[in-house]
Formats: sequence, structure tokens, C-alpha cells
Amino acid sequence: MLYVDLNCDLGEGFGSYSIGNDEGILELVTSANIACGYHAGDPMIMNRTVALALKNNVAIGAHPGFPDIMGFGRRYMAITPQEAKAYVMYQLGALQAFVTAHGGVIQHVKPHGALYNMAATDYMLARGIAEAIYDVNPQLIFVGLANSMMIKAAEELGLRAASEVFADRAYSKDGNLVARGISGAVIHDKDLCIRRAIEMVKNKSVTTIEGEVLTIAADTICIHGDNPTALDFVAALRETAEEQGIAFKALK
Amino acid sequence: MLYVDLNCDLGEGFGSYSIGNDEGILELVTSANIACGYHAGDPMIMNRTVALALKNNVAIGAHPGFPDIMGFGRRYMAITPQEAKAYVMYQLGALQAFVTAHGGVIQHVKPHGALYNMAATDYMLARGIAEAIYDVNPQLIFVGLANSMMIKAAEELGLRAASEVFADRAYSKDGNLVARGISGAVIHDKDLCIRRAIEMVKNKSVTTIEGEVLTIAADTICIHGDNPTALDFVAALRETAEEQGIAFKALK
Amino acid sequence: MLYVDLNCDLGEGFGSYSIGNDEGILELVTSANIACGYHAGDPMIMNRTVALALKNNVAIGAHPGFPDIMGFGRRYMAITPQEAKAYVMYQLGALQAFVTAHGGVIQHVKPHGALYNMAATDYMLARGIAEAIYDVNPQLIFVGLANSMMIKAAEELGLRAASEVFADRAYSKDGNLVARGISGAVIHDKDLCIRRAIEMVKNKSVTTIEGEVLTIAADTICIHGDNPTALDFVAALRETAEEQGIAFKALK
Amino acid sequence: MLYVDLNCDLGEGFGSYSIGNDEGILELVTSANIACGYHAGDPMIMNRTVALALKNNVAIGAHPGFPDIMGFGRRYMAITPQEAKAYVMYQLGALQAFVTAHGGVIQHVKPHGALYNMAATDYMLARGIAEAIYDVNPQLIFVGLANSMMIKAAEELGLRAASEVFADRAYSKDGNLVARGISGAVIHDKDLCIRRAIEMVKNKSVTTIEGEVLTIAADTICIHGDNPTALDFVAALRETAEEQGIAFKALK
Repeated sequence: MLYVDLNCDLGEGFGSYSIGNDEGILELVTSANIACGYHAGDPMIMNRTVALALKNNVAIGAHPGFPDIMGFGRRYMAITPQEAKAYVMYQLGALQAFVTAHGGVIQHVKPHGALYNMAATDYMLARGIAEAIYDVNPQLIFVGLANSMMIKAAEELGLRAASEVFADRAYSKDGNLVARGISGAVIHDKDLCIRRAIEMVKNKSVTTIEGEVLTIAADTICIHGDNPTALDFVAALRETAEEQGIAFKALK
Repeated sequence: MLYVDLNCDLGEGFGSYSIGNDEGILELVTSANIACGYHAGDPMIMNRTVALALKNNVAIGAHPGFPDIMGFGRRYMAITPQEAKAYVMYQLGALQAFVTAHGGVIQHVKPHGALYNMAATDYMLARGIAEAIYDVNPQLIFVGLANSMMIKAAEELGLRAASEVFADRAYSKDGNLVARGISGAVIHDKDLCIRRAIEMVKNKSVTTIEGEVLTIAADTICIHGDNPTALDFVAALRETAEEQGIAFKALK
Repeated sequence: MLYVDLNCDLGEGFGSYSIGNDEGILELVTSANIACGYHAGDPMIMNRTVALALKNNVAIGAHPGFPDIMGFGRRYMAITPQEAKAYVMYQLGALQAFVTAHGGVIQHVKPHGALYNMAATDYMLARGIAEAIYDVNPQLIFVGLANSMMIKAAEELGLRAASEVFADRAYSKDGNLVARGISGAVIHDKDLCIRRAIEMVKNKSVTTIEGEVLTIAADTICIHGDNPTALDFVAALRETAEEQGIAFKALK
Repeated sequence: MLYVDLNCDLGEGFGSYSIGNDEGILELVTSANIACGYHAGDPMIMNRTVALALKNNVAIGAHPGFPDIMGFGRRYMAITPQEAKAYVMYQLGALQAFVTAHGGVIQHVKPHGALYNMAATDYMLARGIAEAIYDVNPQLIFVGLANSMMIKAAEELGLRAASEVFADRAYSKDGNLVARGISGAVIHDKDLCIRRAIEMVKNKSVTTIEGEVLTIAADTICIHGDNPTALDFVAALRETAEEQGIAFKALK
């Protein structure tokens, strides 16, 4: 039996504001990335979201981001690797308190938004994040873009890495995601997305936008919870995947 | 031999801003209350301050405050007990990450500023803070104003409490500090401050502003690190205290 | 012809977060209170909201609040009158920039949430807000709770005041709103709300929860834009009001 | 008589935190760039700083920055030109309120830190800032790095531009400042700094790090107020400059 994890961002409201359908998405995924107060999330929301994830038996990950609620952590900020390390330690520790209080454990850490994108190609930034995780709890899994600097930094430090793939995104032959602005970067055909996801899990490969075959590890598939079609997509993915001998479960 | 702890707030800068003389004060005290990013402190500063406290063999406490850097956590905010609980969990967890990374342990939690003052008289708020500490780590000590609701809430929950006293502040017969605005609230005579501190430690009592004798536990004495005369005061206090058979050490 | 203004809070999103139905509500009201970045709102949202209000020919007011996005400005904060004055000046000036850029004018200032509630009964706080308005532009109108300290402070300073009434809230004989926690504080019967609104506009009086007749000025009626029944209510209010010779228009 | 302006950043504290010697520096400069709450400064500080500048008869400028107090606005953030425009409008408007209240006028706008550095080379960002100034008040002067995109954007929009020069920084032949990391970027010889400042004002030229002569306009010289030697430097600069027929005065 082949296994793959489905992960989704969660708890991304702030104060009176809410975003996404946390309750709905928790029935679909096997791992949740919970916002930690820097790009989204606040202590009350973190507390509720942790309880909700545990109740749904979904594995919990920290989802640290840039200190930029106004930009939802989606804007590049030129922080140093030392700052990245300290910011991830802070957010990871904050989430740990709620998880401990509810009797759970943290499974993984997945950076958010622009921090994720920058660390995919900036080794020193990825290294800072990996060190943060390692220093707080070396048993945690660093979830990062497949073939990226995040995976490299995690492995060099002796941290367990999980390679994340995107079913609806095109890859280039250098292993990166094709930038959203470029034609063909986002795949809208649901059946093609499912075929690509299954190809990545079964064959550890994907066809790039240039038409080449790229080797890719697919430990976890990213689900966009704020997309109203996410439920349909996951239901269809599950059905096809199970026919092909693939089951869904958390990373550990 | 009688023992008492000396505690001081630490790491209360933010970004490029600094306040206080952290290096100097660490040579005087036995416990440090480290700001956790809500009223002061940021991840880089927390990391440095934790390392500095450990290097000086000073016990570490979390110093959570209101989410109000502009007001330095000194302004009353009408948060609910549930919010107080969540905010303390968040800040305590964040600090725990840095302490873990540096191989240390957290000894205590002492609320900051207006949160401390409000929780001294508001049982439900004190209870929320006590629950936060208990749920994250029931071995931690809740440092609160002697005779206050914080001590009561800690004890009712089965949490170890440490009673804090102020050598330079007058007490009223109901056990509270006399408010700063009132004449006689702050004691400026250094020798009198020392005599009062020693009286509280040795006799577990203090003379109130009304002239009555108040029973008071003195587990830890608050030192104001931003006061330039703090070093002189502590040196004189140490000398007199040692003559009287009192030694200084952390709470555990 | 009798006239009354209908006002509503607007532009209360933040970053990626949105709240309320700004486009729908703008068709119903004659004045908009636009959030200024302290309890909600950000520069991009303020810019869009000002443009939208002008396009709909709705009068613009500043809606300053406490510096507390996490609490949406709904939590009491013990700020000084000087801080209240400075915070209102800051927010009013910020909004003025967008209004100037779009070729409009600001009509009024209405404090938000806890700042409004505190200033209703705290004369010094109300005075600080009134001074802020006066110092920035003495032509502006201070919109505050009818019979409250805000109206008093505005008038004493020579600032034009507009008395705000709530159709769905009970009043006590001292002129204040009955606190939400108390039974009968919120009136759910739509027809009764409409009758009370019209009574206040026509007769300048309202029956208090104690059954007495309270004199009350009704220059503007507060509409809750985040309430899905607001559209129905305003449509019904307009119909009944017009039959009674009342028309709706902005304050100046 | 030749004239040049001396400008300095001011009011860069936040809440309980202070930085720089505002009172001392105000006796030396002719224009002050006042922080507006995004990278530093808060309403209470802005109010005090505006009053102080007016009392010292120093011209007032807005000093808008990135929304990043933790990084003091010194970290690059990938904001859009539309965001830059909105953020500058917001901050400029906020400062305007205090200046109006104190009976003064704003003379100029000078972006802070990373926003200044980015806008020096990014035309669209510089254009966004210029539009913000123009839309709020087309009489204001845009102070930017000499020969940079800020000057170009201002002039294209019909906004008055003032070229800023640095006496203690090396220039490269493309007109930019040599990056601080590069050897020779900062000039430590006080006499050389003074000679270069005077050369720029008198001859409108400076010798680049490559040894070439660069044409440069010098409308205003940047003084670093947080540098303890600033007072000495300015005193010496004034003496030498006056001997050479150069006087100091604000931009308008």
C-alpha cells in the first residue's frame, strides 16, 4: 500500500475576522498547518483550531509566517536567517503550548506564504528555519516544497523532511513551481490534477511544463481550504487514488 | 538559613529599541522575568536574553503582558479570563521554545504591568492566568503579589505560588499596595526599604500605611532594573540581609 | 419636513480579511463611518471605501478606535484623554488624506466601539476626542450618543454635535443605553423599532425601560451593516417614515 | 549666496521607547523628517515632535516607512506601487493633522529606510510615492536621493523634487550610493566629508569611487541624528561652508 498525506492551512482568521471553512476541510485532510499569530491566527483562534484538529484526528503542524498580518504573510520581507530562525522558534513554541494543553503533539512545521517561497530557493533562510525546528524539537518534520532548499536544509541537519507537491501547479525542469504569472502555471482541469497527483505519488515523477520528466518525492499534497471546489477535488482524488492502491494518512 | 529570591524584568526592548541595563542587573538578581513579545520583547531579543540569563545562572520566568507595545502593557484592557488564559499560553509557549533551545528550564511565570495589577484583584482573570500556566506546565511557579487573587488562584488550582513583595511600596491593611498616586505610596528612604524587606522575609509581616501589622509572605522581592540606583540598593540589601541570616536564591 | 441621517460603519476589513457588505449598505444610508486603521481598516481599504462612499453620494465620517485590531476596538483600554486626543487626530488625519485625494470632504467623526462607549460617560475622554476634532478641523461634526458626555464636550468646545440614537436598544432614565447583558436591552420586534425611531425623530422623546419619557435628540440613526436584516429594516423604516413626513439626508 | 538644507530624521521613538537626541539635533538642522507611526513614531510622539520642530523654527517633513516597527522599516518588503501610494497617503495625512493643529505647514515628504532605498531604483514604487504626495498636496516637495528614480518620478508628475546628498557616503558612477558592505562606502574622515559636501553644493559634482566626476544636485544634506559626532560635524560644516559663501536654510 502506498500512502500520502493531505495537508491544509488552518486557523487563519484574526480577532473578529475569519477566513476559510476550517470545519469542512478538517474532514478531508490528514494534516493541518495551523497559523501561529504572525501572518494570521491569534491565541484564541489557535486554541480553538488545535482542539478542532485533535477532535478530527488530524495531525497538527505549525505554520509560521512573516510578521505581517496586513499582507497575510504573502509579501517578501528581507529578514536575515537569524531572524527567520527566531521567528519560527517563537511561533512554534507558541503553538506547542496549545497543543500540550490539549494533550496532543506537533507533527510538523510548514512555513507560510512568502516565507515558504523564499526558503524554497534561499538555502541560508531554509537553514535558519531548519535550525529553529531542530533546536525546539528534533523529532518534528520539516514540510517543504519537493526538491527545494527546505528539503536540503532539513536533511543536512538530520531533520526529517516531507516533500510537498501541488496537484494543480506546473513544475519547471529545475524542480521549481512555475510562477503564477506565467501561462500554464495553474492547472484548472480537475482530472488532470488528479492524474498528476497520482503520478507523483506512484511514480515519484511529474511531467514539467517543458515536457520533461522530473523526479519528485510526494510525501504530502497541498489542499487549498479556501477554495470552494476543494471538497469536490479531494473526494474525487480519494476515489481514484484508492482504486490505484493509494491511501491517505498523516506523516507519522 | 532563610532564603529569598530577587526578581527583575528583563528583555524589554523591541526591535531597534532597548530599555534597561540587562547585563548589569543580571549580576544582582536570582530570577529574571523575560518579556514575551506582547508588551515588549521580540524573538531576537528573547533569544539573546534567555542566553544571557542562563550564562549568569539566573532562573528564568515568562513575563506575559497585554498585546499593547505602544502602551508597554501598562494600560488596563478589558480582556476576558479566556483571553487572558490564551494570551499567557501563547507567550509562555513562545518563551519555552528559546529556553528549550538553550538547554534551560522555565521556573516561573509573572504577569506584567496592568495584567499583573488587574489579576491582583480580579479572581477570574487570575484564575485564567493560573489555568494557562497549569495547562502548559503544572510544575511552573506563579509569581504574584503577596496576598492577592493571583496567589489564591494558583493555590486553588494546585499550582505552586510565590508571593512577591515590594520593598519600596506602602501596603494598606487589606493587603494591597497603596496606589502610586497616594501620598506615602512610594518609600524613598533606602534604609527603611531595606528594613521593611528584611522584616517581611524574617517576620512574614509588614507595617501598613495605617500603622497595622499585616501578615505577608515574601518569597521574592521585586527589583526595578530600569532604576539607576537599583545596583546600590541591592548591594546594601545583600549586606544587611546576610548579617541577619538571610541568603538570596532562586525559587527552586 | 423633518430630516434624519442614517449612519453605518464601513471599511472594517483588514488586509485579506473582510467584514460586512459595504456595497449593499451604501445604498441605504446617508452617512458612512469609515474605519481608520486602528481597530480595523488599512490604507488600501480606506482608499477603496472613500471612493465607494463618494460614488454613492454618502457623506463621509472618520471612525477612529482603540489601537486593538485583535479585539476590533471593542475592549475597554485605559488610555488618557491626551492619548485619546492624539489617537483621534492621527486617524482623522489619515482618513483626510484619502478624502482629499478623491476630491471629497469629511463631514463628521464618530468614535468606534469601546472608545465610543467609554467617552459616552467619561467627560475627560470625550473632551480629548472633541479637542482632536476641533484642532484638526472645527467645521466637523462630532457624532456621539444622544444625551452623552460626547455631546456635552462637543458643545462646550463650540463644535457641532450630532446626537445618535439606536432604534433597537432600550434606554434607561439616566439617558444611557441599557447594557446589552440586561434583559430587554435589545429590541427584536422590527415594528417596535421603527415606531421608536420615528417617535425619537418626531417627538424628540423615547420611553425608557422604566416606563418614563426621556427627552432625546435624534440627528442620526445607527444602522448595523453586518446585520443581514439591516436592508429589510431600513426599507421598512423609510416607508413608514416617509408616510410620517420624515426624510433621510446627511448631517450637512 | 548659495543655500542648502540640512535634514534629519526625528520622532523615531515608539511608546515608552526613545531613540536619538531630538532636542539637540533640532538646533542644527533646517528640516526635520518626522516618523509617522509605521516604522517608528506614535501619535503622542508625533504631537510632541511637531511642536518641538515648530518651536525651533525647523521645516517639517513627513517620513513615511514600511509597516514594520520590529524591523524599524529597514527591511525590504515587496509591496506594490498601489500599497506604497496608500501607505504614504495614510502616514502623510496622519502627520498633517498634528501639523495643522499646531498651526504649521508640511514642507516635504522623505521616505524612510528600505522604502527610500527601494524607491531609489524602482521607478514604479517611486511613482506610487510621488502620486501619494501629489494627490494629498501637490505643493509638497518630494525629498529623494539625488539622481534617483524618486527625483525622476517627482519631476514627471509635476511635483517639486529636492535632491538629497550624503556627505559621508561614496557614490558610484551610475549615481547610486555605494552599498554599505563595500569597502570605501562610508567615509570616516570628517574633513573629507565636509569638502565633499561643499563640492556638491558649489559645483554640483562629486568624485565617484571609480574616480570619475558625477553631476549631482545637492538641495539637502542628510544628517544622522543618532550619531554622537553629528553635532561636531555640523558645527564644522557650517563654519567651513559659510567661509565659502554657503548658507543653510530650509527648502522653501
